[in-house]
Parts: sequence; C-alpha cells; structure tokens
Amino acid sequence: MADPSALTSHHELQVRFCETDLMGIVHHANYLIYCEAARVDWLHKRGVSYESWVAHGVHLPVVRAKLDFKKAAQFDDRLRIETVMAQLSRASVRFVYRITRGDDAICEAETVLACVNDELRLRRLPADVAEVFQRPESA
Amino acid sequence: MADPSALTSHHELQVRFCETDLMGIVHHANYLIYCEAARVDWLHKRGVSYESWVAHGVHLPVVRAKLDFKKAAQFDDRLRIETVMAQLSRASVRFVYRITRGDDAICEAETVLACVNDELRLRRLPADVAEVFQRPESA
Amino acid sequence: MADPSALTSHHELQVRFCETDLMGIVHHANYLIYCEAARVDWLHKRGVSYESWVAHGVHLPVVRAKLDFKKAAQFDDRLRIETVMAQLSRASVRFVYRITRGDDAICEAETVLACVNDELRLRRLPADVAEVFQRPESA
Amino acid sequence: MADPSALTSHHELQVRFCETDLMGIVHHANYLIYCEAARVDWLHKRGVSYESWVAHGVHLPVVRAKLDFKKAAQFDDRLRIETVMAQLSRASVRFVYRITRGDDAICEAETVLACVNDELRLRRLPADVAEVFQRPESA
Repeated sequence: MADPSALTSHHELQVRFCETDLMGIVHHANYLIYCEAARVDWLHKRGVSYESWVAHGVHLPVVRAKLDFKKAAQFDDRLRIETVMAQLSRASVRFVYRITRGDDAICEAETVLACVNDELRLRRLPADVAEVFQRPESA
Repeated sequence: MADPSALTSHHELQVRFCETDLMGIVHHANYLIYCEAARVDWLHKRGVSYESWVAHGVHLPVVRAKLDFKKAAQFDDRLRIETVMAQLSRASVRFVYRITRGDDAICEAETVLACVNDELRLRRLPADVAEVFQRPESA
Repeated sequence: MADPSALTSHHELQVRFCETDLMGIVHHANYLIYCEAARVDWLHKRGVSYESWVAHGVHLPVVRAKLDFKKAAQFDDRLRIETVMAQLSRASVRFVYRITRGDDAICEAETVLACVNDELRLRRLPADVAEVFQRPESA
Repeated sequence: MADPSALTSHHELQVRFCETDLMGIVHHANYLIYCEAARVDWLHKRGVSYESWVAHGVHLPVVRAKLDFKKAAQFDDRLRIETVMAQLSRASVRFVYRITRGDDAICEAETVLACVNDELRLRRLPADVAEVFQRPESA
C-alpha cells in the first residue's frame, strides 16, 4: 500500500447561508455533506469520477459514520477538509476527515463506505476500484 | 373536468430545526420542498403513488416555479398547505399552493411539472396519468 | 431516574422526494435530520418546546453523532423512529435512536448534545432542563 | 447607476451528490441555493460580506423568486452562474441569474430581496448598502 501521506488530500469550501441554523452556526448534518464533497474531490485528484463507477454497477453508500464536533463553524467561513483513506477491506473502505478553519479544529469524522451492486447487495470491490483507493494524487 | 374544489387538497407539516437559517426563519428554498411534499400527498389522497409512475417511465420534473413570500415562518411552526391542480395540458400540469399558519398567509407558490420519459425527453401525459390530475380525493 | 421505557418515545415520518439521491435511496445525511425531528417530538411529548429554552439562553448543539446504516430507505417510505434518552450528565445528554420500516431495521444512531450558553460556551444543564430529560411522556 | 455589465458577476460551482434526486438530476430546490451562493459571491467581489450588514440590523430575505428550468444538471456538473443586479428600489433589490453548463442553458431565475430590520419589518435600504448594489467588481 502507498505511504499514508499519499492517501491524503485537501479540499476547501465556503459555508453557505442555507447551511446555518437559527443558532447562527452550521447545522451538524451538513458536515456529512462536506465530507462527501471532500471524498468526491479526493477521487477527482486521482483522475477518477464516481459516476464512471456507477455506470459499471459499483455504488459506495455510507454504511457507518462518526462525527465529533469541536467548535462551531459559521456562515461564510472558509473550511479546509483533510481526507485520508484509512482502511481498505474486501468490500468496504474507510475515510477519516479533519475539518479546520485556520488553526481551529472544527470537526473530526469518519465514514465507512460499502461496495454494493445495482440491487444494493454487498459485493467485493473490483480490483480497479480498490487500486484507486491506494493511489496518490495524480501529477 | 371535475369542479375546482375537488382538485384541492390540504397537507400539514411542522417546520424542522434544520430548515431555519441564521435569521431564525425558514430558509426560502425549503418552500419548494414543502410544496413537493404537499403534491405527493395530493396524489396519495387520490390513491396514487408517484413511484408507480416512475416505474412506468413517467417522470414529472418541475420546469417552472414561482414563490411569493408574505410572512416568515419559524422553527416548529405548524404550516398548512392548500394545493390545487390549476391547469392540465398535453404534456404538463400546473399546481398552485397557499401556505398558511393559522390565519397568517406565509407563502403563495406555483409549479409547472412537465412529463418526460426515462431519457428526460418531453412526452405526452399518458391518459391514465392525466386522469388522476382531474380526480377528486378518494372516499 | 425514571425507568428506561418512560424515557422512550416514537415518531413517524415519510421520506421526501428531495431526501433521495441518484442511487434512489435516502441520502445518509438526512438521518441526522430525522433524529433531530424525533428529538424535538420527544420534547413535545413531555410538554416542552425547544424554543422556550433558546429564549432562556439554553442551547443544545450536537457535539457527537454516530450512525449505523442497516438497510436503505426509499422515497415515500414510512419510517418509525424510537428515541431513548440514554444518559444524562452535568452538561450533556445522550439520545439513541432506532429507525425502522415495518420489521426492517434501517438505521441505528446516537447523538450527544452539549448544553451551551448564547456565546456557545459550555454550561451546566439548568435543573429544570435536566428534569425534563428524565420525564415520561405527558398523559 | 453604473453600466449594466458592471453589475454582473460570475460564480462557478460543482453539483454535489446530495443535491441529486432519484431521477439522477439536481433537485430543483437546490437552484435557489446556487443563486444565493452566487449572490454572496457577487457581494464578496465588491468587498462586502453579508454578515457585516446583519451585524448592523440589515437583513435581506428573499420575498419573491422565479425559476425557469431549461435542462437538467447532473452530479458533478460544473455550473456557471451569471448574476446581475437588475433593479434597485427604496426597500428592495432584484437579481437575475443565468445558470449554464458550457453552452447549455440550465436555468434562468430571479429573486427579489426586501430590506428588513431585526424584527423583520420592512425598512429603507441604508444609503451605504444601496451604494454597494450599484458598485462594479473591485479591482
């Protein structure tokens, strides 16, 4: 397997107005959406688009998620998400995330994605898909 | 065509916390979601589930929408949506909505849905689908 | 403390169209929203509205969340959420959730809420708020 | 008033997975969110952050919206939003939007924002706020 730093990518995004709630902070459910955006970008940075997998009957729904909130983020904050492919198994892959705003830790998260077919039944990760998860960012 | 009152149904819902924004009011994009929930319920009340149409290659995406906001709604407000099938054409159907909270008018809206096939190409509304839009609530 | 079954309530909801994604299933971030709706209802069933606490400078943001997805839910599914107040501490409260569709287990989740003041600083749960979390449903 | 092209800005964004629905296309409610993101960016490009107004009791909720959908957008599509300040009145401002994907017209929209105070009561746009809406992008 590639060395850990190779399995890391960074994604930046800006908090949208509609992502805040009446406490004036980002509603917690949005962090799963931020992690997903970061994961899609992690793949892009390895030359892969998730849709090409969907077209071949490979889907990767989230089957487990954990979120630890450290500090609230607010409207218009610029957030940085560090995404690491942490564990690859026969039919699943685990990502961990660190969301920061400048020096502030905002949220730590992890998600496990399972590989399923068009009928949503568990299947082994195809070799070419598994290979992508061990790939460093493209030059 | 059935008389207008027959083409009207009512749906109630409660504002969710995540639907508010930092102004403390319902974020305006949620009203399109409320109208959609009311429309799905309008169909249920005529004995139809939208999925059965999807299974037969009939999709009804929104192609036009208009929203007029009268008063802000807030977290936990109980809203009532009056939904009327206002116009039926060969390949589209127009609904109008009045969203109220008690005596307060909150929002008036309308949406036009076009009938498309699995390739998202415009198609005539099948006769059995068009019939549903002229149907009163089931007993 | 009241006996465990007293600390349990049930909430039902119907999956909205916009809550599905292109896999045709409920997007996983929505389960945090379902849990929140169930929690708000848990309070209502004890005669309390969350806003009244907000008005007194008591906020309860989610500081930890865990989700285990068992089976996919789909558009229009009727889901039932069993919500249990599982642990009460000085400045936080933990809820666990079991989301089902008929006999199918869909999702198991838990969230920890921390008590904070208007400046989002941790504070002890006021006695009257702590009392509510140990209360059975109102007659 | 500045010449019309000066009142125009462009914003790019990428469609998120969670913004699609089971038709495999962007759910229509998200376009209001895209327009809002473009509007926030329009202000940033004139050196203004919306929060600074909020801090001074100036809020600009959407009071009217119109959307015309031309073509469906899909997951991961890169969209470009042209935003024009189209009309400035005493207590409101109207923006129009053209959302495109390459040469494809995806959506045309407009929103009217009203100026309200902390109690959500209509108020005149302060002179310094009105001035911003007539400003070209900062160098």
